[in-house]
Formats: sequence, C-alpha cells, structure tokens
Amino acid sequence: MRYSEMLLPTTKETPSDAEIVSHQLMLRAGMIRKLAGGIYSYLPLGYKIIKKIEAIIREEMDRAGGQEIFMPAVQPAELWQQSGRWNKYGKELLRFKDRHNRDYCIGPTHEEVVTDIVRNEIQTYRQLPLNLYQIQTKFRDEIRPRFGVMRSREFSMKDAYSFDRNEQGAALSYRKMFHAYERIFKRCGFRFRAVEADSGNIGGSYSHEFMVTADSGEDAMIYCTSCNYAANLEKAEAAKPELQPANEKELLPCEEVYTPDVKNIEEVSEFLSVRPGDVVKTLIFTADNETLAVLIRGDKDVNEIKLNNFLNAESLELATDEIIYKTTGSPRGFAGPIGLKCRILADYSLIGMKNFVIGANKENYHRKNCNAGRDFTIHEYADLKIVSESDRCPRCKGEMQLARGIEVGHVFKLGEKYSKAMNATFLDDDGKEKYMIMGCYGIGVSRMAAASIEQSHDDDGIIWPMSITPFQIIVTPVNMNDEEIAKQSEAIYARLKERGLEVLFDDRDERAGVKFKDADLIGIPIRITVGAKRLKEGNVEVKFRDRKELITVPLGEIETFIDEAVRSRIEECEA
Amino acid sequence: MRYSEMLLPTTKETPSDAEIVSHQLMLRAGMIRKLAGGIYSYLPLGYKIIKKIEAIIREEMDRAGGQEIFMPAVQPAELWQQSGRWNKYGKELLRFKDRHNRDYCIGPTHEEVVTDIVRNEIQTYRQLPLNLYQIQTKFRDEIRPRFGVMRSREFSMKDAYSFDRNEQGAALSYRKMFHAYERIFKRCGFRFRAVEADSGNIGGSYSHEFMVTADSGEDAMIYCTSCNYAANLEKAEAAKPELQPANEKELLPCEEVYTPDVKNIEEVSEFLSVRPGDVVKTLIFTADNETLAVLIRGDKDVNEIKLNNFLNAESLELATDEIIYKTTGSPRGFAGPIGLKCRILADYSLIGMKNFVIGANKENYHRKNCNAGRDFTIHEYADLKIVSESDRCPRCKGEMQLARGIEVGHVFKLGEKYSKAMNATFLDDDGKEKYMIMGCYGIGVSRMAAASIEQSHDDDGIIWPMSITPFQIIVTPVNMNDEEIAKQSEAIYARLKERGLEVLFDDRDERAGVKFKDADLIGIPIRITVGAKRLKEGNVEVKFRDRKELITVPLGEIETFIDEAVRSRIEECEA
Repeated sequence: MRYSEMLLPTTKETPSDAEIVSHQLMLRAGMIRKLAGGIYSYLPLGYKIIKKIEAIIREEMDRAGGQEIFMPAVQPAELWQQSGRWNKYGKELLRFKDRHNRDYCIGPTHEEVVTDIVRNEIQTYRQLPLNLYQIQTKFRDEIRPRFGVMRSREFSMKDAYSFDRNEQGAALSYRKMFHAYERIFKRCGFRFRAVEADSGNIGGSYSHEFMVTADSGEDAMIYCTSCNYAANLEKAEAAKPELQPANEKELLPCEEVYTPDVKNIEEVSEFLSVRPGDVVKTLIFTADNETLAVLIRGDKDVNEIKLNNFLNAESLELATDEIIYKTTGSPRGFAGPIGLKCRILADYSLIGMKNFVIGANKENYHRKNCNAGRDFTIHEYADLKIVSESDRCPRCKGEMQLARGIEVGHVFKLGEKYSKAMNATFLDDDGKEKYMIMGCYGIGVSRMAAASIEQSHDDDGIIWPMSITPFQIIVTPVNMNDEEIAKQSEAIYARLKERGLEVLFDDRDERAGVKFKDADLIGIPIRITVGAKRLKEGNVEVKFRDRKELITVPLGEIETFIDEAVRSRIEECEA
Repeated sequence: MRYSEMLLPTTKETPSDAEIVSHQLMLRAGMIRKLAGGIYSYLPLGYKIIKKIEAIIREEMDRAGGQEIFMPAVQPAELWQQSGRWNKYGKELLRFKDRHNRDYCIGPTHEEVVTDIVRNEIQTYRQLPLNLYQIQTKFRDEIRPRFGVMRSREFSMKDAYSFDRNEQGAALSYRKMFHAYERIFKRCGFRFRAVEADSGNIGGSYSHEFMVTADSGEDAMIYCTSCNYAANLEKAEAAKPELQPANEKELLPCEEVYTPDVKNIEEVSEFLSVRPGDVVKTLIFTADNETLAVLIRGDKDVNEIKLNNFLNAESLELATDEIIYKTTGSPRGFAGPIGLKCRILADYSLIGMKNFVIGANKENYHRKNCNAGRDFTIHEYADLKIVSESDRCPRCKGEMQLARGIEVGHVFKLGEKYSKAMNATFLDDDGKEKYMIMGCYGIGVSRMAAASIEQSHDDDGIIWPMSITPFQIIVTPVNMNDEEIAKQSEAIYARLKERGLEVLFDDRDERAGVKFKDADLIGIPIRITVGAKRLKEGNVEVKFRDRKELITVPLGEIETFIDEAVRSRIEECEA
C-alpha cells in the first residue's frame, strides 16, 4: 500500500479525552475515530489489525473443532424471557420495539440464540459434542463507556458455545477451548495469565479469565508466587487459618465503653488505641428476604460477590437503616453481634481473634474484649473477604501477589443453566432424554488490539508484534525528489510485495523526520530506510521498531534479510 | 471436514412458509435458520458461502483501490438530522433511545457516518480521491420481510463510498466501481445485467442496478434487443414519438355522451365500442402543494417515480376526493382535461392521438372525439409511463423486452447531496473550499447467496458455482462398514486436503442413497463415489453436480484429475 493513497490520519497531539495510552495511540495513529460515546469506527489501519486477530482466532477455533456460524445482532424478547434474563439483565441490555411493536434487544451475548438453534437441530447423542462459534458485533449499553475500544458499547467479540452429553465431555470441551485460548493469545504476542473468575450474570459453575498483564488494566488479580493459583480479585480465595483452641486465661472480661462521635473503624481504633485489626466490623445485609450479619476483621473488606455466591441469593444488598434499627436496636454505625436477631456469618479473618472490639448495638457505645463463643455465637465461618497480599494461597499457603490485567478472554462452564431453562435436550444412548451440558467462551476482539498496545509501546508510539501488525515493513525513502532514492525504494517495495510480504511504502513528499515519527507512531515492526549516502555504497538501513541499532544491509540481500526476519518473528509467537 | 461432525441438518420436506426455491433450499440444506421475522442465523454450511463471497468482494474492492474500514451499526440521530434523513426515512429506519435517553438508529446504510469521518479527516485535494468500503450487518425494519435472506430485516452488505474533487474524478470512481462489480458478479458465477435505475431515498444524480436474471426475481427490468440499453422498470424510459401535424379534416366534432355506471377504462371502452388505447385517462395528483393533472393513454399506466423525478417534488400522491371535486367539478371517475383549473401534463403516449374519449368532468358523462390543442391545452409533454414491450428503446428505437431479476448490487452517483448537507468540504488547488463529490456502492452479500441458488438449481437441490461453493468436493464412501472402502475414502480425503482443496468427507453410517441425496441437495460441485466394484478395478467414480454422466477415474490419478477440474472451473468464472 502507498502511504500517499491511504486514509491514515496521524496526529501529534495527545487527545485530551483519552485517559489510557492505548486509547491515545489508537486515535493518534489514525486507527479509530469516535462516532458517539463508546461507539467507534475503524479506519483502514485499525481494521487491518482486527482482521489479523480474527484470522488467528478462526485458525485456532477451527483447529480445536469449532464450527463458524453467524447469528443475528437483533434478538426477539421471547428467548430472553425463556432464559429468565429479559428481566434480570440490567440496562446494559439495549431493548427496543420494532415497527410492529414487538420487543427485541441488540445482543450483548448469544447464549439464548445458540441454545435455541441447538435445541431445534440436535436430537441424539450421536450429534454431540458440538462447538459453534462466531465473530460478531455486540452491543452493551455501558453506563460509562471509557478507554476507547477497551470498554466500548459496540464491540467485536468471538463467542463460542459447546454442547456435550455429560460432565466428562463438557470438561473436555472446556479444556480444548482453554488450550485454544492459550494458543490464540500466545500467537498474538501477549504476556497473559489465566485466572479463576466469577461467572457473573452469564451464570454457570466455574470460569477462567484470560488476563493480559498491564498496569493500566481495569481488573485486579492475585496469584501465588509458589504454585500456579491465580484468580481475579472478585473470585480470589484465601487459605482458611487453623482454628487454635482459645486459652481461657487469655480472655479478658467484656466491657461496654462510651465512644461518642466515633463511627468508622479508623475512628474507633484511634479512640480506643487499638489496631484496626483488633476491631470486628458487623455488616447487616438483606439477602432475598433474609436479614443477616457478616462479621469481618476491621482491616478487611467483604467481597459481596463471594458472599452472594456463598448465600446463592437472587439479590443481595446492605440493609436499610430501618432494618438495621429493627435488627440491632440502634442506628447505623454501632452494630455488633451480641443480642442480634438474625443469622451471623463470620469471615475466616475472625479465626484466632481474641479480646476484640465490636459495636454495642447502642448509639455511641462499643464493647471491648469480646470473644466469639463466650459472648456470642457465630453460626457459620466462610471465606468472604476481598483477598490481599497479606493473605495466603488457598492451595499451597504460599505468598500471594497482586497484579493488574486486561481481560481479553473468558471461558465459562455453564452446565445446564440454559439448556434447562430453554429445554435443550437430547436422547442419550440409554434411551433417556437429558439436558445438554454447555460451556461458553468469549474473546474481546477489539479489546485485544487495545491490550496489545498497552503491553507493547514506548514514548514514540505503538510496537506491534509481527503476528498482528497491519504492515510488516515500512519502506521509507528519505527524499522522494531524489530520483535514485525514489527508484530504488519503488523497486524494494515491489520485490517485497512479490514475496507476499505486507509493505507500506511511505511515498509521501515529506521530510525524513516526519516519516520516521509516523512510522514509529503506527508501530510497524521493520523500517527500511533508503538514503543517498548508504545507497551510494549499495546499501540500505534496516531498523527494528523494538531495537535501537541501525543495521546496514546490502541492496541485493534486502529481500532475503527481511523475509527471514518476518518469518522468524512470527514463528517466535507460534512456538 | 467430516460430515459426521458437522452441524448440517438437511431435511426432505419443503418448508411451508418458504415461497421461493432459494428460501426452500437454504432451509432444506441446513444453511440458515429463522430466528424471528426477517432475521436469520447462518449455520456452518451457509456461513462458509458468505465468507467465500466476502473474500471475492474484498479482493476486487482492494484491486479497485478501495480501503476497508468498519463503521458502527448503532448511529446517533444527530448525523441523520444533519443529512435530513432522520425525518424523511420511513419506518424502515429502526430508531431507539439508549439508557441516557439519547436517540439512535441501527444503520440501514452508512452515508451519514462515512461523510462524518471524511469531513473530519480530509482537508485538501491532495488526500483525494478516496474510496472506503466495509462489509457489515445492516438492519432495515421491512414491513413485510419475505423470501428468506432475499428480503430480510437483518442482512450483510458491502457498502463503499467514494469521494472526489470534481465531476470528472467522480465519474472515474463510478466507472471503477462499475467494473469491480462486473468482476465480482462474474467471479461468483452469475448471469447478470447492469440496468439504469432510480436513486430512491439514497438520492443523487444517477445510478445502476446489477440484476441477476431470474424468473423469480422481485424486480422487473426492460432491455433493448438492438443496443445495450437496459433499465429497471421504475426508471425505464421510452422513445418520444415524432409529433405529426394533425390533419384538420380528420378531426371529428367533440360531443358529450351519457355513460351511466361506467367508470374504469375497460368499462368506458366497452360501452363506447372503442379500444382502451382510444381513451385518455386524466389523473389528478397533489405534488407538494400543487394540484396537477396527468393525461395518459388508456392502455398505459403512470410511473409515479418518473413523474416525481420530473416534478422534483418532496411528496407526490393521488389527489383526495375533495381536491378532485374542487378541481374538476365532479366526483372521482369522470375527470377530463377540458375546463380544468390546474396545470396539465401529458405522457408521450398522447402524441399522435386523435378523436379520443375523455372524462366530461360531470357525473356519468364522457366526451368523444376530443383533440388536444383544439379542445384543451397541454402545458407540457413528458415521459411519464411505465414502459412495456410495446414501447421503443429511448436510445435506438429498437424493440424492448421485459425480464425479471434480483438486485444484488447498486451503484449511485450521489454528487453533493450529502457533502453539502453535512458540510464535507476540502481545499482545492485553486485555494477554494469545495464540496466533495460522492458516490456510493452497495452489494447485498446475503442476498447473493440466495440469488445464486435461484439461478442455479434443479429438482434435487442446489448447484454451486465452484467459486463460492462451501466445499469443492464431497467424498462419498457407499458403505463405511466395508473396511477397504473406508480406508481408501479416508486416504482420498487426506490427499485432497493436503493439496489445499476443500473437501467434505461423508463418513456417516448411512445408505448410499441418503448420501447421494444430501450431496445433491447441498450442491457440492464434484462428488467422488468410492464403491466396492469400482475399487476392485482400482477406480473410483466422479460425478459433476451439473452433469449427468459418471466418470471412472483410476485411484492413482484422482487427485490430479480433481485438482485440474476445480482449478479450471474457478478460472472459467475469472476469465
């Protein structure tokens, strides 16, 4: 492609509304343009990268036995009512009526549609297993779209769905997708980690997220430095401390203390001269119709997702002032476990705590030297906290470390959630009608482009991996008005193209400095500079985008040199 | 691909709700499934064809200098308000509000979005010409979607947009696209015709439709048997007859006749014993705020699109009873040109008519022996009729023939319509700010698959052209339980795949008859049958889907034979 003919509008200025580097660079490199909040157009350079990523995804999905289909964006309400998500899914589900006043949505995901197809077409176990995938535009009406295509409303996604006869088959399908995802992200040049994750509103029994590690990532994850345990923070577990029998002699007498104007943990601990870790927070929740208390060490926070999963509740929220008053007999801020009229859960962090501070269920009062068992009863212990680096690995008790990441893929074991709700059954070889066991598997295609930039850029711009770069090579004549330079550059461009290489020819009548800056900004991995001095010696200059040094290559050897460099770099990713 | 692992649900029964053969066969061959009215999912076989068609489109668009981009499906109302189409576009434009109560639509086309991109990114003539295209899912809320993917609500379209400095450049861009379209449809194996067409609600100065000829086609077209004039019926012109000076002696005296219970042309001509061609119809229209009469020969019909284009009106409709009464002084059914209080247009069909019958503007009365000029004045003659085979070619006066077709492509010269409305300007080399001259170019991708079937099928099923077939070859072992047959079939499958050929291996444990029927139904161009008898002689049998005879090919030569057959058939289309 000739640069002069391409719509490739680069800019020097950093756009003011772009907070993260990938968003800034995608705008500056002329890859995307905003159409509306969270809605972007892909210009030629940007769309080339998307197509490269899609091609890798297709290859690996096909290799793993997936069959590509294409389902509609616009979906009828009926199917979502059958699965129960028409009401459950929040405002991210964009609902509308057609001209005949029928209810539809724009698909944010396709579990309903694919389950509908499969329940109609699959009759017997002989037709299973089945893995169907598509690459398709989704719409989620995010309340606050941000970070460019990283969290946009309209975006491209690869979604796959597996259908199996039994748990064993479903586990195999899940593993196949897991490995396919590893290959996809590796081939696209990512440093990434698969972490255990919560299933969220997709539902199902377990899931993994594929996180590209990047400090700018929206998601927090934690991983063990000793074993291979890794989970996102929503899901992360902590080891259960060993219950040590309390030594009766150590337990001090419980006493009520007057704590005026003292409400949160910091104020309480300062007022009473104890550490936050010596205080116990009592949180009152309403889970469906039950009121319950959750106790947690003062320096920890409750992970509501884990709590919700533990309770298996439809809805979970912090109790209203009214319910708090009814349950504790005091206003908000002084709840404590003694004399509570509800079930009491405690996080593992309470195990081993002695002589701690609690709320007194009485305005402006706390209690010191409380002890579970002696002063009140805990009905159940559970792992309910947001894990931090001070916690121990749930698998091996090793040390854990926090990191940030960008979720680019998510695999879910759905089980029978959708097949049961939508009656997707098959006749098994024992003559019985059974529900199919499903899995679903997503990749954020547009987000991958952004994640790649987050992980691979410098002050001058993007540094594309060879496998997904829009062009492998840029040929840069330093002066198009020098006849010999122009002629040799054209010849190199033609010969590289003939080899099937992807070349951008910067034939613009611009200064060399401008061309170098643009080449660096748009991140082409290999630049061939054609200048007067080197040309007289029969040479050109090669610079790799990710290295500092300039390499002098004889004109006659340039195609072999470049061909070899391109291939070896692609193979590096594939290996 | 192994048939046993593929989701390829063929059926014997013709679906009752499918009226045309392509819809029936796409359902029966397991290519598509209906999700909702006019909304279809593509199953693996169907989507393979779509991808083949897309690949050909991409190659030809790139060859013609197009650059691929990808624009959003969801578009903000503001842009449509700027172009003026937010209010003009009917209910086919699916409008909705997002969670913040802002107005959006799902794009039925992308003139607004692409013009917005280009007006922001193009500053000078040096950046022109530019041709941007995308392959994307559109949504048009058709009131009566029908014929499967032929007229669906959600469908895949290739849309391209060209931007030029001046008319000359725009004409060149148009020609380039015209030729690219010819190549695309040729390569996809179509018999087609490019016809002059009306620009419809896209607007602009002129356009051509690419019609795949098929008796089941929704569109009517007419073409000259002598020259290369061809147009769709909406647009088709007729030659203007030569005005012969009237011979005064031939003109009979005009008289009023009582015609009770006689209203339409058939009744009038029967009652008065004249031919319909001796009667003149007077139609009263309201165009914007003007009332006008259109005269046309009794055996012809007014083409409202041509009339609208002639008047250049915003709105055009047949007048109400009230306006008819006000204008003619009589109820509907008796309008005539004498004494009318409005402008009178006449179709060319009136030229040369003498002593004709007209309405008397009086209930139950007509007039005989009327003559224009003597009895009333025609303000203007124009070509306003729906052309038929009895008309003459507007170019060469040759004979014309009607045909039916399926519109698969449409190219428009838009001119300044959108660039003016949306202020898409550039600085020309004369230092002046000018509007870009635009063209737009669409291809119905999903419709192409259906059109191909309409043109190429028999009683047994589809007959795919080699260039877009989902598989080039099907290997059919007549009995998978015969070890030698199974072994040799597997080997042929493996060797053909190794050559890069696209092979479906019918490894199902089914009777040969079932396999042959399915192979014919899904339309694979070449079938290799592996049976016991031929195998003993060291042969297999080859059958081309579009020929009757069976060819015996030695096992050792099968790959070369097939390879050659596939390549020569693809080249036939390319030539």
